[in-house]
Amino acid sequence: KSPSDSAANMALLEEILGPHPEGTFAARHVGPREGDQKDMLKYLGYQAMEDFIRDTVPQSIRLRRPLRLPEPMSESELTALAQRTASENDLWKSYIGLGYHACHVPQAIFRNIFENPGWTTQYTPYQPEISQGRLEGLLNYQTMVTELTGKPVANASLLDEGTAAAEAMALCVRQTRRTRFVASTRVHPQTLAVLRTRASDMGITLDVRAVQFMDFESKDIAGVLYQYPDTEGKVKDFSELIDKAHKNGALVCCASDLLALTLLKPPGEMGADIVFGNSQRLGIPIGFGGPHAAFFACSESLVRLMPGRMVGVSIDSSGKTALRLALQTREQHIRRDKATSNICTAQALLANMSGMYAVYHGPRGLKRIAERAHNNALLVVEAAEVVGHVPQSTLFFDTIKIRPSEAFPQESIRQRAEEKKINLRYYDDGGVGISSNETMSQGDLQDLLWTLGCRFTLDELAARHGKDAIGRRISDSPLARTSKFMQQPIFNKYHSEAQIVRYMKQLENKDVSLVHSMIPLGSCTMKLNATSEMVPCSLPGFANLHPFVPIDQAAGYQRIFRDLDEYLCEITGFEHISLQPNSGAQGEFAGLTTIKKYLAAIGEVKRDICLIPTSAHGTNPASAQMAGMKVEPVQVKKDGCIDFDDLKKKVERFSDRLACLMVTYPSTNGIFEEGIETMCDLIHSAGGQVYLDGANMNAQVGLCRPGDYGADVCHLNLHKTFCIPHGGGGPGMGPIGVKNHLGPYLPSHTLVKMEQYHGSVAPTSGAVSSAPFGSPLILPISWAYIRMMGADGLRKATEVAMLNANYMAKRLEPFYKCLFRGHLGNVAHEFILDVRPFKKTAGIDVADIAKRLQDYGFHGPTMSWPVTGCLMIEPTESEDKAELDRLCDALIGIREEIAAIEKGAMDSERNPLKLAPHPLSDVCCSEWNRPYSREIAAFPAPFVRPETKVWPTVGRLDDKFGDRNLVCSCPSMDEYSTSSSNSSDDEASCAM
Amino acid sequence: KSPSDSAANMALLEEILGPHPEGTFAARHVGPREGDQKDMLKYLGYQAMEDFIRDTVPQSIRLRRPLRLPEPMSESELTALAQRTASENDLWKSYIGLGYHACHVPQAIFRNIFENPGWTTQYTPYQPEISQGRLEGLLNYQTMVTELTGKPVANASLLDEGTAAAEAMALCVRQTRRTRFVASTRVHPQTLAVLRTRASDMGITLDVRAVQFMDFESKDIAGVLYQYPDTEGKVKDFSELIDKAHKNGALVCCASDLLALTLLKPPGEMGADIVFGNSQRLGIPIGFGGPHAAFFACSESLVRLMPGRMVGVSIDSSGKTALRLALQTREQHIRRDKATSNICTAQALLANMSGMYAVYHGPRGLKRIAERAHNNALLVVEAAEVVGHVPQSTLFFDTIKIRPSEAFPQESIRQRAEEKKINLRYYDDGGVGISSNETMSQGDLQDLLWTLGCRFTLDELAARHGKDAIGRRISDSPLARTSKFMQQPIFNKYHSEAQIVRYMKQLENKDVSLVHSMIPLGSCTMKLNATSEMVPCSLPGFANLHPFVPIDQAAGYQRIFRDLDEYLCEITGFEHISLQPNSGAQGEFAGLTTIKKYLAAIGEVKRDICLIPTSAHGTNPASAQMAGMKVEPVQVKKDGCIDFDDLKKKVERFSDRLACLMVTYPSTNGIFEEGIETMCDLIHSAGGQVYLDGANMNAQVGLCRPGDYGADVCHLNLHKTFCIPHGGGGPGMGPIGVKNHLGPYLPSHTLVKMEQYHGSVAPTSGAVSSAPFGSPLILPISWAYIRMMGADGLRKATEVAMLNANYMAKRLEPFYKCLFRGHLGNVAHEFILDVRPFKKTAGIDVADIAKRLQDYGFHGPTMSWPVTGCLMIEPTESEDKAELDRLCDALIGIREEIAAIEKGAMDSERNPLKLAPHPLSDVCCSEWNRPYSREIAAFPAPFVRPETKVWPTVGRLDDKFGDRNLVCSCPSMDEYSTSSSNSSDDEASCAM
Ligand SMILES: Cc1ncc(COP(=O)(O)O)c(C=O)c1O
Ligand SMILES: Cc1ncc(COP(=O)(O)O)c(C=O)c1O
Ligand SMILES: O=C([O-])O
Repeated sequence: KSPSDSAANMALLEEILGPHPEGTFAARHVGPREGDQKDMLKYLGYQAMEDFIRDTVPQSIRLRRPLRLPEPMSESELTALAQRTASENDLWKSYIGLGYHACHVPQAIFRNIFENPGWTTQYTPYQPEISQGRLEGLLNYQTMVTELTGKPVANASLLDEGTAAAEAMALCVRQTRRTRFVASTRVHPQTLAVLRTRASDMGITLDVRAVQFMDFESKDIAGVLYQYPDTEGKVKDFSELIDKAHKNGALVCCASDLLALTLLKPPGEMGADIVFGNSQRLGIPIGFGGPHAAFFACSESLVRLMPGRMVGVSIDSSGKTALRLALQTREQHIRRDKATSNICTAQALLANMSGMYAVYHGPRGLKRIAERAHNNALLVVEAAEVVGHVPQSTLFFDTIKIRPSEAFPQESIRQRAEEKKINLRYYDDGGVGISSNETMSQGDLQDLLWTLGCRFTLDELAARHGKDAIGRRISDSPLARTSKFMQQPIFNKYHSEAQIVRYMKQLENKDVSLVHSMIPLGSCTMKLNATSEMVPCSLPGFANLHPFVPIDQAAGYQRIFRDLDEYLCEITGFEHISLQPNSGAQGEFAGLTTIKKYLAAIGEVKRDICLIPTSAHGTNPASAQMAGMKVEPVQVKKDGCIDFDDLKKKVERFSDRLACLMVTYPSTNGIFEEGIETMCDLIHSAGGQVYLDGANMNAQVGLCRPGDYGADVCHLNLHKTFCIPHGGGGPGMGPIGVKNHLGPYLPSHTLVKMEQYHGSVAPTSGAVSSAPFGSPLILPISWAYIRMMGADGLRKATEVAMLNANYMAKRLEPFYKCLFRGHLGNVAHEFILDVRPFKKTAGIDVADIAKRLQDYGFHGPTMSWPVTGCLMIEPTESEDKAELDRLCDALIGIREEIAAIEKGAMDSERNPLKLAPHPLSDVCCSEWNRPYSREIAAFPAPFVRPETKVWPTVGRLDDKFGDRNLVCSCPSMDEYSTSSSNSSDDEASCAM
Repeated sequence: KSPSDSAANMALLEEILGPHPEGTFAARHVGPREGDQKDMLKYLGYQAMEDFIRDTVPQSIRLRRPLRLPEPMSESELTALAQRTASENDLWKSYIGLGYHACHVPQAIFRNIFENPGWTTQYTPYQPEISQGRLEGLLNYQTMVTELTGKPVANASLLDEGTAAAEAMALCVRQTRRTRFVASTRVHPQTLAVLRTRASDMGITLDVRAVQFMDFESKDIAGVLYQYPDTEGKVKDFSELIDKAHKNGALVCCASDLLALTLLKPPGEMGADIVFGNSQRLGIPIGFGGPHAAFFACSESLVRLMPGRMVGVSIDSSGKTALRLALQTREQHIRRDKATSNICTAQALLANMSGMYAVYHGPRGLKRIAERAHNNALLVVEAAEVVGHVPQSTLFFDTIKIRPSEAFPQESIRQRAEEKKINLRYYDDGGVGISSNETMSQGDLQDLLWTLGCRFTLDELAARHGKDAIGRRISDSPLARTSKFMQQPIFNKYHSEAQIVRYMKQLENKDVSLVHSMIPLGSCTMKLNATSEMVPCSLPGFANLHPFVPIDQAAGYQRIFRDLDEYLCEITGFEHISLQPNSGAQGEFAGLTTIKKYLAAIGEVKRDICLIPTSAHGTNPASAQMAGMKVEPVQVKKDGCIDFDDLKKKVERFSDRLACLMVTYPSTNGIFEEGIETMCDLIHSAGGQVYLDGANMNAQVGLCRPGDYGADVCHLNLHKTFCIPHGGGGPGMGPIGVKNHLGPYLPSHTLVKMEQYHGSVAPTSGAVSSAPFGSPLILPISWAYIRMMGADGLRKATEVAMLNANYMAKRLEPFYKCLFRGHLGNVAHEFILDVRPFKKTAGIDVADIAKRLQDYGFHGPTMSWPVTGCLMIEPTESEDKAELDRLCDALIGIREEIAAIEKGAMDSERNPLKLAPHPLSDVCCSEWNRPYSREIAAFPAPFVRPETKVWPTVGRLDDKFGDRNLVCSCPSMDEYSTSSSNSSDDEASCAM
C-alpha cells in the first residue's frame, strides 16, 4: 500500500469517525459563533474574512502561507499530554537553597486563589472602585512585608529578587547621585548576575567584595548591599557597616528572607534603608523559578523613588476609607524615561497569595513554620559535626555550608545524595550547602543524615545532644528578634478554614474580572484564559521543581521550552527565543541590552541613541533609559502614524550614534501603518537595529511576522497574546525573539547553561532575571494555547480580534469619533475614541466615562493612553457579539447622557457621569438627593439587572488625598478600633 | 538500646523539632480558637470542657477511652497519601458499559463547579430567594431530560439508575393499584438486583422475562420495564409493547441513555410513561460508580406521584418569574410514610454539572458526541465481522455483544485485552460485550481491533468498507430521531468558554453557600468541607475507574474502603459497615431490609412492626414503608423525650410482631435523652432490633457509640458528620454499621463480591444501589477528614459542636424560648426555638423569621421540623464565635422587630418581617413606599455591609401559584421572546 493510499484511507477514516466529539478548542476560545462572524463581516461591508483582512493588514507584509505548527489538540488530549510532560520532570528533594525553598502551599489558598478565575483574570487595579478586593489583599501583603522587615513602607511586589536588587541599586544611585555601588560576595550569585547586567548598562561601577568591614571614606559610594542570612546561610550583624555607610552618605540595602525575619532582628531595626527579597517560601510553589512575588521595603524618605506599584489608603467621594494605587506619578506610564523603573506587570497574584498565607497563619503560625525550618537545620548541623564535617557558620537560620571531613568529601556526599534523590548545593571549593525547610519529614531528615555519612538515627542524635544541648539557636543569640510583628487584626482573625475561605470570597466578589464581563483595555489584550490552559500549572511535576536542579531532572520543562521556542520562532519569524524576561518591560530591557551587546561586539560602541515614537508605551523609554540608551522621540502625525520625515531626519541627525528604533506594531494607536518595512530598511541602512514592541501581536499571529518585515528583536507579552491571565497585575512573561545575528547576545545565566535547554546558541551576555527561564510555571499556559489552537485557530483568533474591534468601531461611529484608522479605513485590533471634545461641550472627561461604565458593569477601557484624554478599546477575539453589543450600548447610553448635559437637560455637575460610579451604598441609601433616579444611576441599561450586577464597592476615589496622606499598610490594632468606630459613625447617617 | 529508650528519644526528637509547621488540621476545622472556647465555657458556667460534656451527654453511655484511630496527619501528608492511594488504582480502558461510560469532563465545568466551594457547599434550595442560581441550573437539567426523553416533566435527579427503576416500579404500583411488575431480562443486571430487593420488600411480584412480545391480558400488571438500548446494546422498537400495555391498563417504563436519545427516537414519542436512567456520561467522571445523577421523566398525569425534588417556575412577591422546588407535598418531609418515596438527599451537584454540560455543548454538540460514540462502535463491529465474530444485533448505539468466532473465542479475546489493559464485558454464554464511547482515540480503536483478532489497521478497515459501506447506522434506521431537541435559548447561547464561565459565575453568585456565612440548619450539619478533603476527588486514579473492573485494578479504593470500614466501626461501635447506600434515606432502607432479612433467617418472618417516635425525620416512616414494615408511632412527651410508657405499651401490644424501633439519637429534638440503653434493652428483650438514625452523629463521635448503648444498626450521613459537602442537595453517602449478627444480611451486589473489598462477611441479601459502594468518588472526603482529625480532633469537634449550640442557646435565651433541654439543662449540638407564640402576639410565623434572616445574610435554620412552627438551629463546630455572635445578633434584632409589632410600633402587615426578604431590586428602586427605611430593610445590623452583602435575588416566592400552574422546564424559544418582553415591561416601571 502506498503512502498516499494510506493518507487517503486516513482521511476516509476521519470522515467515518466524524468531527472530534469535544469540538475544536478554537471554537471555545473565539467568542462570536460562525454565523455571528458572517453577520459582523456583512455589517462591515465584507463578504468574506479574507476580504476584510486584506483591507486591514498591509499586503506587503502578509505571511503567504499557514504557520507551521503541530495539528491542534483537543482539550482532553492536551490535558493528557501536559500530565505526561509534567511527569517527565523528576522531583528530587532539593535542599539547594539559593532563595528557593519547598513550602506547604495551603490547599484552601491554592484552590480558591491560584485556581480560581475570579482571582486570576483581573486586571491591574487601576479602577479602584471595582478592585477593592485585591487592593486589600495587596495591602495585607505590604503590611506583612513592613512588619517583617522593620521598614515603614513596601510596594505591592516586584518581579524577582534579582531585579529587586537592581531596583535597589538604581534607587541608591538616583538618591545619592553617586555611581559606585558595592555588593557583598555573599549575595546569591544569580542576584549578582542581574546586578552586573544592570550596572553595566546604567554606567554604574559595581564592586563585588567582602563588605562587612569596608569603609566608605571615599564618599563616592551610592549604596552597599549585603544579604541576611547570606547566600551560604550565615547570619551576621551588619549594624556597624550600616553606621559607617550612613555617616558617609551611602545607603544600605539588605537582601533578606521574610521567614527568617520572624526569628531574626529585622534589618529595618538595624538601620538598613532598603530591604528586599523573594516571598516564594510564603506559600508559593517553587515552579522551577517562578512566578513569585519579590518584596521591596524602604524608608519613608525614599518612598517617592521606590519602584513598582504600591497600594495606599485614601477616601472615596463620600469620605469613606478606600484603597487605590498610590503615588502613580513615580511610574513609567507617567514619568516615561524619568520613571523610577520600567516595571509595569509585576507579581500581584503571587503577592496576594503570600499575603493571604500571612493572614491564614498569623504571626504565631509564621514563627512556628520558621522554627521548624531552623530546628531541622540545627539537627542537620549536629549530624554533620558528628561525622567531622565543619559548619562554616555558628549562627544560621535554615542554610548551612559545611567543609566536608576528609574521610567523607563532597564527592562521597554527592554520591549518596544521588542515591537518595537529594539535590544539595555543591560549592567549587569542595564545600556543601544544605538548605533545610519546614516541609522535611523525619524520613527526609534521616535520609539527609545518611547522605552526610552520619551513622546515627535521628532519635539517637536527639538523645546524644538532648534538647538543650543543641546550640546555635537563633533565640539564644543577640540577633534574635525581640519585636512583635503582625499584630494587626487582619493577621489574627481568619485562622479557621471556614473563615479564610469566606474572607477570600468576600475580596473576590468586590472585584470585576473576566468572569463577569469583558475588560476592553486597549493594549492589554484581556482575552480568555481557558481552564484547560490553566490546569497544567497545578501539576506537581511543574509546580515543585527547583530552578537549579541538574538538567536531567527537568526533562518535562525542557520539552515545554523547546516547543515554545519552536512555536514562537515560527509565529514571529525569528531564529532564537529567550524565555528569561518575566514581563514585557523586562523583555524590552533584555532586547535592548542584547542589541547593545551586539553593537559592542561589532565595534559600534558609540551607538547609544534609541528612537522612540512619542506614542510609545511608557515602558519603552523607561527601558531604553535603563539599558543606558539615550531616548530621542520621533514625532507622530495627525493620522496616528509615525512621521516618516521626522524619522528620516532623526536617523540622519544621529547617524553613527543610532543604536535602534523601538516601535510598536501595529501601532499603539491601533492601526497597521503602511511602510513598516521601509522604516526598518531605513534603520538598517543607517546601521541601527529595530526593536519591535510585540504587545500588539494579537493582531498579527498567523497574518504577518515581525521577523519577516524587518524587526531584529521583539518581545511577546505572553500574558496578552498567549493567554497567561493578568492576575490583577502579574504574573506575566515577556520572552524575546531575535534574528540570528543577535542570538549569541541573548540573556545567559550564571548557574544554568541556557543552551542545554533550548537551541544551539550559547548566549554570552548577562542575566536579566534571577531564574534562567523567568516564570516557567506559567509557560504551560501559552504552550497549551498554541497546541490547542493550531495554525488555523491562531489565525482565526487574530482575524476575529480585528473583526470585533472593527465591528465595535463601526457601531460607535455615529456617537464617538474613532481617532485613527488605517489607510483603507479599518482599525486593527483596538481603536481610540476621541472623547476630548466633551470636556468643552459638557465638562465630561475620560475618567467620567470610565467610571460611568462601571455602573454598566464594565471595566473601563484604557484611559489617556496613548492619547491623553481619550479611551482605547480592545475587545479581543474571545468576546462574543452579544457582549460587544452590550458594551456598545453602554457607550451609546453614556453618549446620550453627555448629549443631555450638552443640551442642558442634565445638570453639568450633579449628573450620573460626574458622580459615577454609584456604589450600592449610595443607591440603597434612604437619602437620595440627586437630580436623576436611582435606576438611572445603577441600572442604566436593560442588561444591567439587580440579580447579576457587579457593583463598585466604593465611590470615586480621591487620589490626591491619599497621596498627600500616604498610608500603605493595614491599620494597627489601635488605629483599627478608632477607624471602626468611625465607620459606625458613617452607619449612623446612612446605615452603610 | 531498649524500645522504651527509643520511644523517649523519639519524644525528645519531636520536642527538638517543635510543633508541626502546618499546625493541626483540627485547629483549622474547628471554628472557635482555644481562647474563645474558654470564654464560651465560662459564659456557660463551666471551668473545663469535660465539665460541660458531663452535663450534656449521659454518663451511662460515655465511651471511657479515646477512639483507636491512626495518628492525625497534616494536610500535606494527607494529600501525599491520597495521591499514592489513587495511583494504586490501575486505570485500564474500560469498554464494559453496563451504564457507565468514559466521557470528556469539560475542564471549565469541572473546575468552576465540581472544584468550587461556591457550588459544592450549598444546601438544598428550600430557601428559593437565595437559591435561584442552582434552581436555574437544575431547571436546565430537567429541561434537557424532558427534551431528550420526549416526556413533559422530569425531576431534579435521583440517586442512581437502579433506585430510579425501583421508584418507577413503585409509581406504577401506586398508580395502578396492581402489584405485579414485569422487567425485561435485558435490563442491566444491577438494576434488576435493586428491583428485586425493593419488590420483595414491598410485596410486589417481580417477573423478569423477555417482554417484547408479552401480553397483558391478565390485566393485573402494574407496569413493564424495558431498556432502550438494552444492556447488550440492542435497539428495538417497543411501540407494540407499549400499545398492548396501555390497552390493558399497565404503565410502561423505559430505562434509557440520554446520549443515545440524541440519535434515537425518544421513548416518550413512542408512548412510554416513565423514562429514567443515568446521566453520568453527560460530563461526570465515572468515579468507580458514583456519584452521578439519575434522571427520571414521566407523563404529566403522573407528576404528583413522581418521586424526588422537582424545580418549578413560579412568581415572587412582586409578580416576577422565580424558581423554587415544586409540589413539595409529594415528599417525605411532608407525607411521611405516605410519601411517593423516601428520597431526600439526591444528586443535585451532578445534575447541575450534567445540565451545564448540555448548556455548554448544545444540541449540536451532544449529537456530535453521540455520533462519535456510535461511529466508533460501527467500526468495531465491522472489524469483529472481519474476524468472524457474530454481532448479536443489527441496530445499536455504542454497545454490542458479539458471539466470538470459534477460531478466536472469548478466552483469546480476554488474553489480548489484558495485554492491552482493556476491560470488556465477558458474558457467561461466551459472548463478549464492547461499549464504545466518544473518548476513544484512534490508538484505542486500533488496540481494540487487535484485541478482537482483527489484522487490519483502522485505515485499511476504512478503505475496505468505504464511508457508506458501513451499515447499521442509526440514521438510516426507522428508529432514527427526527424530532428536534434543546432548541431553548439556554442551550444555544453559551458555547464559548468566556460565556459559559460567566454564566456559571452568575448562577453561583445568586446563591448563599458556606463560602458566605454559616448555614445553621438543624439536623443537616452544614460544617466545613475543607479543601484538603475535596482535593482527592479530582485525582484521576479515583475519578476514572469503572465500577466493574476486576478487583486487582482497584487496590486504591480497596484501601479506602477498608480504612473507612475500620474507622467507622471504631467510631460507632459496630462490627460491620456497608458502604453501599448512597444517602441517609437509602441507609435507612438498607438497614431495615437487613433487619428484615435477619429476622426472616431466624424464623421471625411475621415481625413487621416498626416503632417510630412522632418526632422522627420523614425519611424514617417512608423508609419503613418501603421496607415493607408497618409504621407505628411512639409518642413524644412535652419535654421532647420519647414517652417511655407509650413505648412500653406499644412493645407489649405488638409483642411478637415487633420488628424494630427506629430512633434518632441524640433525638431530633436536639437532646441526649436519658435512658436510651433502657429503651434498647426493652426492644431487645421483646425480640426486636434497634435501628439508630445516625444523622446526629456529630454530637457523638468520640464521646459515645451507638453500638455500645444498644443499637443494632445505624446509618451515618457522611454528608453531615463526615464532611461531604451538600452540593445543593446531594451527593451524599449513607453507609450503615451493624452488629455482628446482622453482618451476613448486609447489601450484596450481583456483579461484585463485596467481601473481596472489605471484611470477612459475605453478605447474602440483595442490592440497594446500582454500584457496589454507592458513590465511591466522594468517600475520600470522609476518609481524609478522619485521617487529618485523629481521635482527639474528632472528639474536640464533637465537643465544640455542642459548645457552640449551647453558647447560642444561652445567648438567645432572653429572647426566644429554647423548646427542649436535657435534664441537666443543656442541649446537644442543636436546639429548637419556639417561635409559635409570635403568631398570636404579632402575626409572625416561622417563615417570616427565616426570610428575614436572609436580609441579615443568613440562610434560615430548619423550619417546622421536628416541631411545626419552630426553628431548629445547628451551628456545627466549624463556625467561630464571631459568626455565632452575628447570627445571635440577627435573631435578637428580629426579636426586637417582633416586639415592635407587638407594641404596635410597627405595622402588623407592612413590616420588614412579613415583607422579607428584600431583594436588591426592591431596595434600589425609586419607589419605596414601606413604613420602614431601606436601611432597615437591607442593612438591619452593623455587620451587614453593602460591599459584602449577599442578596436574595427575588422576593418571597409564591408556592401556591407555582403548584397550580406547574411549569418545570425552561421556556421555549417562543415563550422566551414573550417573557423577555414582559421583563422589559417590568423595567419600564422600575428599571429591574
Ligand atoms: C505597548 C506595550 N508595551 C509594553 C508593555 C509592558 O508590558 P509589561 O506590563 O508586561 O511589562 C505594555 C503593557 O501594557 C504595552 O501595552
Ligand atoms: C434525622 C435525619 N434522618 C434522615 C435523614 C435523611 O438523610 P438523606 O437526606 O441523606 O437521605 C436526614 C436528612 O436530613 C435527617 O436529618
Ligand atoms: O485541583 C486540581 O485541578 O487538581
